Amino acid sequence: MKDNSKISSAVIKRLPRYRRYLADLQKKNVDRISSNELSSLIGYTASQIRQDLNNFGGFGQQGYGYNIQSLYNEISAILGLDKDYKMVIVGTGNLGQALANYTHYYKSGFIVTAMFDVNPRLIGIRINDIEVLDYGRLENYLKENAIDIGIVSTNQDSAQEVVDKLCAGGVRGIWNFAPTDLNVPEGVALENVHLSDSLHSLAYYINRNKQKDKE
Amino acid sequence: MKDNSKISSAVIKRLPRYRRYLADLQKKNVDRISSNELSSLIGYTASQIRQDLNNFGGFGQQGYGYNIQSLYNEISAILGLDKDYKMVIVGTGNLGQALANYTHYYKSGFIVTAMFDVNPRLIGIRINDIEVLDYGRLENYLKENAIDIGIVSTNQDSAQEVVDKLCAGGVRGIWNFAPTDLNVPEGVALENVHLSDSLHSLAYYINRNKQKDKE
Repeated sequence: MKDNSKISSAVIKRLPRYRRYLADLQKKNVDRISSNELSSLIGYTASQIRQDLNNFGGFGQQGYGYNIQSLYNEISAILGLDKDYKMVIVGTGNLGQALANYTHYYKSGFIVTAMFDVNPRLIGIRINDIEVLDYGRLENYLKENAIDIGIVSTNQDSAQEVVDKLCAGGVRGIWNFAPTDLNVPEGVALENVHLSDSLHSLAYYINRNKQKDKE
Repeated sequence: MKDNSKISSAVIKRLPRYRRYLADLQKKNVDRISSNELSSLIGYTASQIRQDLNNFGGFGQQGYGYNIQSLYNEISAILGLDKDYKMVIVGTGNLGQALANYTHYYKSGFIVTAMFDVNPRLIGIRINDIEVLDYGRLENYLKENAIDIGIVSTNQDSAQEVVDKLCAGGVRGIWNFAPTDLNVPEGVALENVHLSDSLHSLAYYINRNKQKDKE
């Protein structure tokens, strides 16, 4: 694998999307595809696609196109999806439980090993055979188990404290669903899913379209 | 309210975030804030903030700063959060149910009026007193009720068909959680939450950091 530490974050953001389309093509038993065909599927220009895929070896050959299987494997490796990740979920309300189910059914390679909550009514229940543990046990749990990713689905006010504990315990990535911005130490990756921001953007565009209708 | 149809989508993307910080400040009973103080909280430069907020009247006064309540109300109005939105959820598995709970508890103004599924085991159950209806009834439901937003939390293969039905039934916005890209007619807003793309980006950055550690 080529050194990929210099790939721009804009390209990285597009890779999961390329990978989704390549997975679809594999399902349809397509072997190879040109940048033009890929362009008409995915909506980026063919030259953008060639430029993106050139970043890591490429696999494109003139007159042949891209080998879908190779390209899929290469992108998967760059994204680190050829490895397994152990995860804990902190905050096991509705969203936390949904995420436990989501990763269980859809995401091979991403394994939730434990869930944590402060709510006595949740502690002890099982989601997909994963027990919800008392949040007070998180610190020790992280000492005894090498956890890669902490999923934060607590409320806004607890989120930073939870993240501090997760990072001190050695997690390398935070997947944050709490509606707040968080600080992580250098070397820890942070990915936010701000549902309310997304819903509010949607509301904006609905209203803008309605205004246009009136004009 | 000023005409806001010319505000760039980059600014729009930042507005929900400004609004979150302003809501926090209100909770702390802060009345006003300078662009410099806001900058140190939110992480954008002060000049970026002034430029963003100038887009819609501003409210900033030299030596006084921004009136937090006014700015919050103004941003809320621009985002259309001074109105109510009726929503239906299609696909009421774990994620759909979590979203029903999420909007119920956190999002005043966004009201789920019905949920739909094809699964006989889900049809008839109630989430926060909202009944899950047979998906076959969606078309009629949309004729009889003015619905603003369709939340799509089906699997990938059903998502486009569901969106077509929602749009034909008059919804003005799609909040999509299915792991696929969708087509909507002009005039319908689309906001994607691609959870797997987000998780895959996280995996990439974890691995890149690990590589850096080794260097």
